[in-house]
Amino acid sequence: MPGVPAVSFGTDPSRYRHLRLEIDGEIAQIVLAVDEAGGLRPGYELKLNSYDLGVDIELADAVQRLRFEHPQVRAVVITGGLDKVFCAGANIRMLAQSEHWWKVNFCKFTNETRGAIEDATEHSGQTYLAAINGTAAGGGYELALACDEIILVDDGSTAVSLPEVPLLAVLPGTGGLTRLVDKRGVRKDLADVLATRSEGVRGQTARAWRLVDEVAPRSRFAEIVRDRALAAAARSRRLPGGPGVPLPPLDRQVSDTAISYPNVTAGLDRTAGLATITVHGPREATPDGADGMHALGAAFWPLAMCRELDDLILWLRTNEVELGTWAVKTSGDAAAVLAHDRLIEATAGQDWLASEIRHYLKRTLKRLDVTSRSLIALIEPGSCFAGPLLELALACDRQYMLDGVLEDGPGAAGGGPLPGPASVVLTAANFGAYPMANGLSRLATRCYGEPGQLAKLEQETGRPVEAAEALELGLVTFAPDDLDWDDEVRIALEERASLSPDALTGMEANLRFPGPETMETKIFARLTAWQNWIFTRPNAAGPDGALRRYGTGQRAEFDKKRA
Amino acid sequence: MPGVPAVSFGTDPSRYRHLRLEIDGEIAQIVLAVDEAGGLRPGYELKLNSYDLGVDIELADAVQRLRFEHPQVRAVVITGGLDKVFCAGANIRMLAQSEHWWKVNFCKFTNETRGAIEDATEHSGQTYLAAINGTAAGGGYELALACDEIILVDDGSTAVSLPEVPLLAVLPGTGGLTRLVDKRGVRKDLADVLATRSEGVRGQTARAWRLVDEVAPRSRFAEIVRDRALAAAARSRRLPGGPGVPLPPLDRQVSDTAISYPNVTAGLDRTAGLATITVHGPREATPDGADGMHALGAAFWPLAMCRELDDLILWLRTNEVELGTWAVKTSGDAAAVLAHDRLIEATAGQDWLASEIRHYLKRTLKRLDVTSRSLIALIEPGSCFAGPLLELALACDRQYMLDGVLEDGPGAAGGGPLPGPASVVLTAANFGAYPMANGLSRLATRCYGEPGQLAKLEQETGRPVEAAEALELGLVTFAPDDLDWDDEVRIALEERASLSPDALTGMEANLRFPGPETMETKIFARLTAWQNWIFTRPNAAGPDGALRRYGTGQRAEFDKKRA
Repeated sequence: MPGVPAVSFGTDPSRYRHLRLEIDGEIAQIVLAVDEAGGLRPGYELKLNSYDLGVDIELADAVQRLRFEHPQVRAVVITGGLDKVFCAGANIRMLAQSEHWWKVNFCKFTNETRGAIEDATEHSGQTYLAAINGTAAGGGYELALACDEIILVDDGSTAVSLPEVPLLAVLPGTGGLTRLVDKRGVRKDLADVLATRSEGVRGQTARAWRLVDEVAPRSRFAEIVRDRALAAAARSRRLPGGPGVPLPPLDRQVSDTAISYPNVTAGLDRTAGLATITVHGPREATPDGADGMHALGAAFWPLAMCRELDDLILWLRTNEVELGTWAVKTSGDAAAVLAHDRLIEATAGQDWLASEIRHYLKRTLKRLDVTSRSLIALIEPGSCFAGPLLELALACDRQYMLDGVLEDGPGAAGGGPLPGPASVVLTAANFGAYPMANGLSRLATRCYGEPGQLAKLEQETGRPVEAAEALELGLVTFAPDDLDWDDEVRIALEERASLSPDALTGMEANLRFPGPETMETKIFARLTAWQNWIFTRPNAAGPDGALRRYGTGQRAEFDKKRA
Repeated sequence: MPGVPAVSFGTDPSRYRHLRLEIDGEIAQIVLAVDEAGGLRPGYELKLNSYDLGVDIELADAVQRLRFEHPQVRAVVITGGLDKVFCAGANIRMLAQSEHWWKVNFCKFTNETRGAIEDATEHSGQTYLAAINGTAAGGGYELALACDEIILVDDGSTAVSLPEVPLLAVLPGTGGLTRLVDKRGVRKDLADVLATRSEGVRGQTARAWRLVDEVAPRSRFAEIVRDRALAAAARSRRLPGGPGVPLPPLDRQVSDTAISYPNVTAGLDRTAGLATITVHGPREATPDGADGMHALGAAFWPLAMCRELDDLILWLRTNEVELGTWAVKTSGDAAAVLAHDRLIEATAGQDWLASEIRHYLKRTLKRLDVTSRSLIALIEPGSCFAGPLLELALACDRQYMLDGVLEDGPGAAGGGPLPGPASVVLTAANFGAYPMANGLSRLATRCYGEPGQLAKLEQETGRPVEAAEALELGLVTFAPDDLDWDDEVRIALEERASLSPDALTGMEANLRFPGPETMETKIFARLTAWQNWIFTRPNAAGPDGALRRYGTGQRAEFDKKRA
């Protein structure tokens, strides 16, 4: 948004203000010690380890760096670094003063960070444990719920609580309600009691209700947490592959009309409400085996590209909220993309770095899936929608593919001869390596109503598929020729821009996830949708609502009508 | 709501204003011919077979009567009775002028009616077909989507369309988006195109996109529809069991403080925001076999009780929106409930009436599950929470069970000696006969985190379980004794009444459905939640929003920020 300082999602431990990342052999600790004065925006103090987007950016960064920079770590303990405080959840004054879109975007990012914690536990051999050594309220307890194990200090006063409903008239919306019943198997009537009892539940009752895994007296707390962390580390199936890969700051260039990284660019058209994202294929040769990949480190194209794309998604979501449509393009040599894909495919089962890169691209694609922007893939001559990059197109709401060549077009980036007709290439990567939140590949999701079509597509891997055949195979929505391309794409983008942003967001959230549901889709769709609704309701966010009146000494006034 | 005319959900074909129910042997037709001047509330005209709550009440009644009064029917054709119009969907002016809670409640009922159509197709051997003989727009096409087969007239102009997003800035929220991709297997990018193209899709394209099952020229349309209906009837596995059972008008007595039927009563406490519902057990002996059941017809207690409970739920939802908590009680002889349960259990596999009663109670319990009211079961001496009636308690958010007897209590209804301690009785009916929308029994849902507990409960059927043991078995939330009962229940109800109605609705919608998701839960939770959000957004419902400006000649003005 012009005129508002942009939020950057880039940070590193040397710049953390709110947490400490402590590494001791196989065990890491993330110690929350939030700087009250370190709020991202003015107007609130981050008391009692409450968090805002800035705190969560550091948490997400720590989770990410542990996976890439500290491959020896096999268990991660999250604990509180203030006296008798674990975490008091999202900062209430921040929520009360924030615009609706900010609240929704903030919650989405925090949900993604909780998901990254679970993904590390499940796929990275880095198991998260919550050591609740003091108040764990609301989003604080929800952070613990994202961990694999929860240990609660039993001191007669420390409780876990979800006071959102009784105190703020909003939901424990960072996965709390869903994880209680779906992940931890808390009985639903007991979950109801917890979520309406502002003081929460302590000690053995918390354990009996399955809210925590173990309670420990303060005198033995550190020892029991350490024992559990060591046991988790011992169970870890973390892959070998040598020392960590440092993640240097990204080279992000921002102007009013473009955001550029070495491998990813975005053109910004504010009049059209459009961001045109282009992912560039590899310019260097594929390195030789896992050793070559490690030698390149963060410069290895799949990792470099993915970091830049991830950063761009977050940047656009937070800083360019009026660009409602993202056109998604690629540019480069499909053969080079495929060569990199083959290296990842060949090594991901044995090498932690290859595995981490694959899971990182998976998470980045998942970010696209839940992004509240219309996503339109434009597949043109000179593009390289092959294997992993084809997932970008499949994540889009529609795919337009040019049939033939662009006689008058600018050609491929960098000049040279006019490129031949656009093609896409299916590889094994499109059939399960990058599952969506619903547990299916994007192709399986696309073919949900026609499973036979999916089997047919599996026969078509490894070769370029041009537009007419891609249309026939159901890989693209439309395949206009040179004469129609410009008009058809322009009209589609203009139409999209003319529609209600809210209706599009709701429509896309429903159409993008046919088929099965998982805890993850329940959190991002069901729970989030209800929370979004509640965030718009006067009982929460109105001038007399609970969110706005919290801490003023005045009780909220509720319209008692049930909707 | 005091001062507003109450809506009654009771009707019958002799009073229909908007549709005709035509029976011809095995085939029934529901012909939509909506009376423009017959709106339920003033301020709009029901043009082009658009509908409001009043139209949908007639549709729901027709679907229900077909199951009970016309057991010979094995296929049902829904078609339009106006020139070149099938159905134009929910009336837009009605939506534009309605309060938020009215819109949400209206959509919930119409969703339940669509669900009843699918339930009849799946469980009643009455397969629904949509014969789209003219415009099927928005909710009109969504009504067709609830049918098992869709036949579209191919006349060069008739289209199916979902113009909600482009014209009204709301969603096709009556299951449309979900059924497109999850039921019909429409490819998600094509669903995106359909749902943003206000003119819709016609003819062979509609068939190729799987939007309809068959297209037919007008000259052969009736014949093809009839052939398909006869084929569906031939496949029907409708159970035998003799002639239909007439459903006479209910005896509903309404005062300012109570709603009473012969078997169900509700006390209304507007100060406390509380409705206390009591379901009374059978007063007559169980009839002898299926013949006795048929002889009683609508007077057979399970059917009579269920009809009254269903009507009460709808009445309270629509007419008493400020009663945010429902306390749920039963009264009567558990042995009599169990005897009726055994008769249903013994005959439901062979007799259509027994089967229909069971499915009707299933649907009525599902209405409770999606009711936006806090549900608190109060299990007291003199109650009869046994078998099917225990489902009422399990549908609640919490269960309070009195441990012991009420020394000073009023005793059972009707005086007599003080009843003994409260007990509950599990039967086979609690383990699958009445599944929730998520496909699980309420007990399996309750034990979602502890499957072993469910297996344990299966060993405990057929005997009275008193409070202490019920608490131990996890069947109830709290079991206060005589001394604490009044205070504990009063405090719980007062606390509930003090909370934000919106936050409670969102919380309950999330906690009531742990575990698997189905198309049905996706419609009621995910799609509905997004629609509720959109209904609150200025881009749709604000003075400059699309819903309010539709038909005025003025374009809507949108805040372009994506949330």
